[in-house]
Amino acid sequence: MSNVSHPEGYVVAVLGATGLVGQTMIAILEERNFPVRTLIPLAATSGGRTVHFRGADIPVKQVQPESFDGVDIAIFSAGGAASLMYAPEAASRGCVVVDNSSAWRMDANVPLVVSQVNPGALKPHNGIIANPNCSTMQLAPLLKALSDAAGLERVVVATYQSVSGAGAKSVADLVQQRATVVSGGNATSTIYPHAVVSSPIPAIDVFLPDGSTKEETKVVNESRKILDLPSLRISATAVRVPIERSHSEAVHVELSRALSPDQARAAFAGMQGVTVVDDPVNHAYPLAADAAGSDEIFVGRVRTDNSVEHGLAFWVVSDNVRKGAATNAVQIAELLVKMNLVHGARHDA
Amino acid sequence: MSNVSHPEGYVVAVLGATGLVGQTMIAILEERNFPVRTLIPLAATSGGRTVHFRGADIPVKQVQPESFDGVDIAIFSAGGAASLMYAPEAASRGCVVVDNSSAWRMDANVPLVVSQVNPGALKPHNGIIANPNCSTMQLAPLLKALSDAAGLERVVVATYQSVSGAGAKSVADLVQQRATVVSGGNATSTIYPHAVVSSPIPAIDVFLPDGSTKEETKVVNESRKILDLPSLRISATAVRVPIERSHSEAVHVELSRALSPDQARAAFAGMQGVTVVDDPVNHAYPLAADAAGSDEIFVGRVRTDNSVEHGLAFWVVSDNVRKGAATNAVQIAELLVKMNLVHGARHDA
Repeated sequence: MSNVSHPEGYVVAVLGATGLVGQTMIAILEERNFPVRTLIPLAATSGGRTVHFRGADIPVKQVQPESFDGVDIAIFSAGGAASLMYAPEAASRGCVVVDNSSAWRMDANVPLVVSQVNPGALKPHNGIIANPNCSTMQLAPLLKALSDAAGLERVVVATYQSVSGAGAKSVADLVQQRATVVSGGNATSTIYPHAVVSSPIPAIDVFLPDGSTKEETKVVNESRKILDLPSLRISATAVRVPIERSHSEAVHVELSRALSPDQARAAFAGMQGVTVVDDPVNHAYPLAADAAGSDEIFVGRVRTDNSVEHGLAFWVVSDNVRKGAATNAVQIAELLVKMNLVHGARHDA
Repeated sequence: MSNVSHPEGYVVAVLGATGLVGQTMIAILEERNFPVRTLIPLAATSGGRTVHFRGADIPVKQVQPESFDGVDIAIFSAGGAASLMYAPEAASRGCVVVDNSSAWRMDANVPLVVSQVNPGALKPHNGIIANPNCSTMQLAPLLKALSDAAGLERVVVATYQSVSGAGAKSVADLVQQRATVVSGGNATSTIYPHAVVSSPIPAIDVFLPDGSTKEETKVVNESRKILDLPSLRISATAVRVPIERSHSEAVHVELSRALSPDQARAAFAGMQGVTVVDDPVNHAYPLAADAAGSDEIFVGRVRTDNSVEHGLAFWVVSDNVRKGAATNAVQIAELLVKMNLVHGARHDA
């Protein structure tokens, strides 16, 4: 299948097409006018559903290895198990997979890419590209800016993650919890052990033997890989909050050299896709509701952290479903096209 | 008025008696069977309201300097302006004031006390005792435990503060915002520039010239004073979240000496009023909803922070209206009685 020319665009498959991120991926492919010749929406079980794309309702097909025959680019957001099973199948058929699960991110042979941070890592690839975790995604461009400007010594992050990070079911669960509270009831979750409407929950993904969560470990390991700082000292507490959309993060960093808040704001503003919102006296700081629907990463509350030499603190907010997942995956696909990496530029080619 | 004996108890005034914290103070005086001979509920404007105490409805009086004639102990929770005006008036009349505002906390002549951390600071006093900020309150006993066990080098805190920290009006505002969202509307706040129901808001109290908020500065300065560690390196990001009751905090500390998570849990458990809830694999970690109504400080998610030598991370939750405000104020009053400091034991006596 390699070296086929696509004068009219690419055959693009989306696995997990009916999920919150998958649907957003399809919307963003259309929004950004990605050169799609044919869209193939796939799901673990099709259930007779359709997705809307460029004015048409396209039937969702049940995924099987042969689904990827003739596909140029496949964007996956169907969980780790599906990615482990189907990404190699797709890659072996000459398709480039952009995978949003955690399955391949830390594989040494798989690039892990934030579009504006490390596009160069795409070349070479072996047919599978990993899309970072949402919490990592919105932080990486800011850490990159600081690393370039003044060197990174240590990073401490506390997250305020919206329920949409756990998919459409979690959003519906919060909506139901809110309705229960409003009607005077005692809210419980239909899917989790605790109700987020009444408690921030410091438990995202599974717990590891060292007491951290897998989500917290993702922030650590993925940041190191994306920034190519394998020994970066970074630590996180990941917390779910009763917000529908967008993740917020409180970040305290220690830099190698002095950097004033003004210099930090300038460094942040110099990153593509980053908007500085920092006029707190006039109530302007990044807010989840303002970020929802945008592809930008918003940063504000930039200030000196006096508790350490060359300390800096800031507040980062981005739409976790868009830049945190779907948009970056599409941006990776755009880079693959731009860098001529859709076919024939593989490690083993 | 000094050295009067009170065989049947004390005359206790509560200023701000109709507020959320004031009402809770009165409830806790009754719950804990504080030796009240006469309760005098006071407010800036009485409005003909009453408070319930020991089965009776007691009229709220409008405060004036003479309100404190014959009063032994006055507990204030009516804001900084009222405290600045009336605390000296009360003290000059021989009354001991326990003040929940920020007005006197950093005054070198005013003890700032968390009941189980630094009760010794009450002696001597000049008639005014300050009750710490809620965010500081729940953290101080844990920092004290760590400081004693392994020395404190640096503390980084991110808070998840409930709306009740801003009073009953803010709770009603969140309730209204939730109802608006549930009915499909676009929530706005009736009192703040932004709606917390859809965004964590990194802005509590006013902004200072260095870009921090007064709330964040309180955590820094009050912790140093309470712990008697004037140069403690500590930094905070304070954030409001759409939760009605209890504050949560993600804390990352650097200790002077090695301390395992098990040793840290033992040190925490050794503090009066601290409960360790730390079995995350079985979904047990401190939660705001579980803490609501309790006087305990709950700590969990205790784990090593590998990003720094002798690093430790944990998650702290407590009812901000109770231990974070009303309960500690009553506990201070109890200490004043126990330590014979209600009368005649002043600095200038």
